[in-house]
Amino acid sequence: MSFNTFGKIFRFTTWGESHGPAIGCVVDGCPPNISLSEKDIMKDMSRRRPGQSKFTTQRKESDSVKILSGVFQGKTTGAPISMIIYNEDAKSRDYESIKNKFRPGHADYTYLLKYGIRDYRGGGRQSARETAARVAAGAVARITLNKLIGKKFKVVGAVTQLGLLGCDKSNWNEKEIRKNSFFCPDKKSVKLWEKYLLTVRKSGSSCGAIIELRASGIPAGLGAPIYSKLDADLAGALMSINAVKGVNVGAGMSAAFLSGEENSDEMKKVSGKIKFKSNNSGGILGGISSGQEIVASFAVKPTSSILNSRETINKKGKNTKISVKGRHDPCVGIRAVPIGEAMMSCVILDHYLLNKAQCS
Amino acid sequence: MSFNTFGKIFRFTTWGESHGPAIGCVVDGCPPNISLSEKDIMKDMSRRRPGQSKFTTQRKESDSVKILSGVFQGKTTGAPISMIIYNEDAKSRDYESIKNKFRPGHADYTYLLKYGIRDYRGGGRQSARETAARVAAGAVARITLNKLIGKKFKVVGAVTQLGLLGCDKSNWNEKEIRKNSFFCPDKKSVKLWEKYLLTVRKSGSSCGAIIELRASGIPAGLGAPIYSKLDADLAGALMSINAVKGVNVGAGMSAAFLSGEENSDEMKKVSGKIKFKSNNSGGILGGISSGQEIVASFAVKPTSSILNSRETINKKGKNTKISVKGRHDPCVGIRAVPIGEAMMSCVILDHYLLNKAQCS
Amino acid sequence: MSFNTFGKIFRFTTWGESHGPAIGCVVDGCPPNISLSEKDIMKDMSRRRPGQSKFTTQRKESDSVKILSGVFQGKTTGAPISMIIYNEDAKSRDYESIKNKFRPGHADYTYLLKYGIRDYRGGGRQSARETAARVAAGAVARITLNKLIGKKFKVVGAVTQLGLLGCDKSNWNEKEIRKNSFFCPDKKSVKLWEKYLLTVRKSGSSCGAIIELRASGIPAGLGAPIYSKLDADLAGALMSINAVKGVNVGAGMSAAFLSGEENSDEMKKVSGKIKFKSNNSGGILGGISSGQEIVASFAVKPTSSILNSRETINKKGKNTKISVKGRHDPCVGIRAVPIGEAMMSCVILDHYLLNKAQCS
Amino acid sequence: MSFNTFGKIFRFTTWGESHGPAIGCVVDGCPPNISLSEKDIMKDMSRRRPGQSKFTTQRKESDSVKILSGVFQGKTTGAPISMIIYNEDAKSRDYESIKNKFRPGHADYTYLLKYGIRDYRGGGRQSARETAARVAAGAVARITLNKLIGKKFKVVGAVTQLGLLGCDKSNWNEKEIRKNSFFCPDKKSVKLWEKYLLTVRKSGSSCGAIIELRASGIPAGLGAPIYSKLDADLAGALMSINAVKGVNVGAGMSAAFLSGEENSDEMKKVSGKIKFKSNNSGGILGGISSGQEIVASFAVKPTSSILNSRETINKKGKNTKISVKGRHDPCVGIRAVPIGEAMMSCVILDHYLLNKAQCS
Repeated sequence: MSFNTFGKIFRFTTWGESHGPAIGCVVDGCPPNISLSEKDIMKDMSRRRPGQSKFTTQRKESDSVKILSGVFQGKTTGAPISMIIYNEDAKSRDYESIKNKFRPGHADYTYLLKYGIRDYRGGGRQSARETAARVAAGAVARITLNKLIGKKFKVVGAVTQLGLLGCDKSNWNEKEIRKNSFFCPDKKSVKLWEKYLLTVRKSGSSCGAIIELRASGIPAGLGAPIYSKLDADLAGALMSINAVKGVNVGAGMSAAFLSGEENSDEMKKVSGKIKFKSNNSGGILGGISSGQEIVASFAVKPTSSILNSRETINKKGKNTKISVKGRHDPCVGIRAVPIGEAMMSCVILDHYLLNKAQCS
Repeated sequence: MSFNTFGKIFRFTTWGESHGPAIGCVVDGCPPNISLSEKDIMKDMSRRRPGQSKFTTQRKESDSVKILSGVFQGKTTGAPISMIIYNEDAKSRDYESIKNKFRPGHADYTYLLKYGIRDYRGGGRQSARETAARVAAGAVARITLNKLIGKKFKVVGAVTQLGLLGCDKSNWNEKEIRKNSFFCPDKKSVKLWEKYLLTVRKSGSSCGAIIELRASGIPAGLGAPIYSKLDADLAGALMSINAVKGVNVGAGMSAAFLSGEENSDEMKKVSGKIKFKSNNSGGILGGISSGQEIVASFAVKPTSSILNSRETINKKGKNTKISVKGRHDPCVGIRAVPIGEAMMSCVILDHYLLNKAQCS
Repeated sequence: MSFNTFGKIFRFTTWGESHGPAIGCVVDGCPPNISLSEKDIMKDMSRRRPGQSKFTTQRKESDSVKILSGVFQGKTTGAPISMIIYNEDAKSRDYESIKNKFRPGHADYTYLLKYGIRDYRGGGRQSARETAARVAAGAVARITLNKLIGKKFKVVGAVTQLGLLGCDKSNWNEKEIRKNSFFCPDKKSVKLWEKYLLTVRKSGSSCGAIIELRASGIPAGLGAPIYSKLDADLAGALMSINAVKGVNVGAGMSAAFLSGEENSDEMKKVSGKIKFKSNNSGGILGGISSGQEIVASFAVKPTSSILNSRETINKKGKNTKISVKGRHDPCVGIRAVPIGEAMMSCVILDHYLLNKAQCS
Repeated sequence: MSFNTFGKIFRFTTWGESHGPAIGCVVDGCPPNISLSEKDIMKDMSRRRPGQSKFTTQRKESDSVKILSGVFQGKTTGAPISMIIYNEDAKSRDYESIKNKFRPGHADYTYLLKYGIRDYRGGGRQSARETAARVAAGAVARITLNKLIGKKFKVVGAVTQLGLLGCDKSNWNEKEIRKNSFFCPDKKSVKLWEKYLLTVRKSGSSCGAIIELRASGIPAGLGAPIYSKLDADLAGALMSINAVKGVNVGAGMSAAFLSGEENSDEMKKVSGKIKFKSNNSGGILGGISSGQEIVASFAVKPTSSILNSRETINKKGKNTKISVKGRHDPCVGIRAVPIGEAMMSCVILDHYLLNKAQCS
């Protein structure tokens, strides 16, 4: 993990700014002989794509991915896979009015302090537009894992908390997640969430979210103690997503409130199969996958670009006010679902390959 | 971050098992001409050392650190600093009775599945004994930062939640933290915590904890977007500590419940100085330090080695029961305070050096 | 250095195949605020470009570099710089006749054995076409070094041996290098070399070359012992260029024939300046630059694609013969000059930045 | 490859100075379940050990390796293997007289310029004493390869050029290499070499050497294009050895003098087996092993510490003279043989493991 590159064996490097001509990524270390097409990748891209409902930004991007290298006659060759996504609906004028002000909650101030120069158009490199490239890389990881360990491999994400509203996780329904505009797993919550988010948006404000990821079909033994533990790498990967402020694995922060008996997952052999009686570990013990479902969640802060006026300073250090118009998601957490899935897929594939090197 | 090495420029590699002859670390990339002695390092070591109160394991270890290289006439030379800590009170016999059983909540099962071999004495490499080496490396980082950016640099950790009991963070008092057995920052909570933990221990159980870390004096501009963001690296670092299940930066998981107005920290120039009106960001925006205090917290699960009997299986896959005697902390979270400080110091120094390369 | 990425702080990742739609690279870790334009980069590109004389391949490529990211208002921003070069004159039909045969001296056989799949069009990823992307990255490094350490920084390469013909290095003339088709530094050798290479080409054969690189204006102190010594990184960088079989630093292989007195460069203070009386070290002592000129050379084997018939096997393992028509350089070593300069520039910049992190 | 760590998957970190209490290394990424004992490692150590003949330094070191971690019940566990070698015969007084002078050919000057501090005792970190730790790591690699790919795996090094004297490589005899004091493969050369080296030593001078390494039993497919080619990694590894100035793979620098026909190795199926008719490639094509013997050579410059007086400057920049007494090898190249073998073994194992991750 270094600057704009993620991963150890399966590595991807992303590039591009929100309002530049294009964004993209180079995936390196993908095993050869995996069937891969632009169409396959678009399945994942379309889930992150903006402009699909009234609850996300109205920026129109087809997010078409073009593969420029690394695939020959429909199969990966072991060479780096370069993918490019052209920016189609960048409206830089929207940003002229705020180019000299630091938007609270954004990285305008820190980018300028660090680099001494800042591409203010749509946030430049700091924009969440970068995550489209991650989803493309994640799609390659997902397809590769489905080839290497079979269809049983699956990563599913869902929004389990939308601002102040939770949902009933015991109603978790994968099909439902694909149907509604919120990736909400609980059909009963959807209507209420719609009303709530419309209110938030109309009030010129925004709200946060919690996303839960569940990965199944993962073999035991993945994860490299001590400093490349599977959960440590997952935490770094998820925290690297724009606007994420917290990461839990299994019981997560709540583990602090449990007793030793409640927390540690007892084991039992039932009908010849080893079973865990609970999954507070989130499928990871000592940094290594146990064969249970891997469960992680992360919190996304509310969109910082809001209509309501806020106090800030400008580049000259003068006090001023700011109200961000543009086209913004009232809850950026929603579109973080496919991004979280992508990062988790990449981490799992990376460790799958690493484990082959170490222990096969 | 790779296997047993942590860091990019300032890197340390740890080695050793709980019941082997010694543990240690090699610190590489430390700048030259930093005054460094074994005595300096022992200050930090003594805060993690076991056997200091009735609330921690009774294993007796002096945890004396011996520097074997990289220091000449009292100063670092730029060469790797090798440090060794001999294990003095390893009682391997304690583990004979459980060597064929998988302790629930421990990594016994996953280590055996991954490696096909397992050093069962005291947990071998999976033991938290490894963290003593981290504290030694962290001491080097802390001393180096105090030389490079001055005395204003400081990382302070405290236990803010002990099992079911919180404390009043508005009473945060650094001196108090150094005085009580819990690294509790709120004097008023200490007595109640004592009673509570004694009860937990007597009942043969254990409890979890939440640790909060605060770093001040950190220059703005540290952190390398996109995949080496300061918060992403911190999250990976803290999640790599044994028994950690969740990591928050700033508002953390709670950010999900805030509105855009509540969450994004407004800026204001007051008496010629730029001030943030709040610190929900935890001092990090877009993965880069803002100059505010850096605040992170993490949850440690309850000690998995408990006296109370639990169901599990043995190496042959037969159902059995286990009750772990040995000498165990009723709350491993307490001793995680200096470990968290160490990891945070290492991450900050690493990014301080990295930023010099990139942007100075 | 990993798969398709080169460097530690200043890193570039290349992608693309000889006959795919494009090739390119992503440069990461370039300092911000460096003036950079496509035009600047083209200066270096044009020196490597094919089809410029009768002594190089007749493939016509404009090798226009398009910058897709990382530059804002003419300056680098610290974000990754993505550059793309479209392939314009790929004639894949040329390769149909040999797609099932292993060309001796080429990597056809090893790529197929390793990956189980091979893009045979123009050699796919194994083609030296990849080096165009290196030259683009090297141009960024060169421009950055000229900004950071001034105009005195310079890397100049020349062909000092063309097959069986050497040149008189005491006639080394930088202006001459830019004038002739061979990057030959000795004006007196050019005519003979022309005749020689025409003969080689007409005979359906090819020849090798030795390239010497001289870098001046390099500050002392660059290089990170033990395993990132400046000369070790240079050796790895130059050996990674297609068809390179040997690398020398300073006296190189000839050092074996010197006595201790002859080899070690004596030092003397002359008119207040520290001078070395010779430069057998090639400007590097203990892996660290000494402030002297850095001198390295490397040997490029003769082009393996020749008209003359050779014995080989086909994919089915049957014995067969092969004669490679296509459009090939009779001496690939010539165009290796700007590639060697690019790699050396990248290594020096990388260590310049690394040294700032370690020792500034 | 970074500072004091070498390798990607199989990684080792060395530490220690010539006259400190000890030196050592931490081997990380070694596969589990490999039988490993200190005795096994001593076999390789004893070949590098000083004081064994009149042709090497008279410093007496038993070079006993103690394993401190990573081995349980005689087998590797997948945890890092820490090894320590105590310095027994360090005579720091020898260096008092030269502590303020820069020895020509040594790194005294560059270490001081880089780090601003220098451990002058025996050269400190810059001493070739560090290579003892490499040989220990290399022994682990060799033993691991013998387990993973069988007894057919073998790396053999020999001195093929001693100063001005070559040997007849067609007389290459492995048993002979083990018998004489020079690792000379040609029995007929030994007597002459003895006389020659005695003369060199008596004259207060020193000489260089060329070492050739041959590795057999290596599967095809190892090496990761583009920037982790097997030959690029080998070149970096060998150039990182103290005093090495040149590296060749296969035909090496001589490839420049060959024609296309002479150089590229033709292939032929003979009795059902694929054969190459020559091995100018040194067993590596496109950076990937071909299954042929891997052949590399490297030049070691003459020992810089010589009795004869040389001109130099002191720390104050004054002109002075120096004559190095101490106990020095008249040809350090001789003891470079086991070091070269160690580095080659490490590179091959690293790529063997990496290839399992990528392509198995």
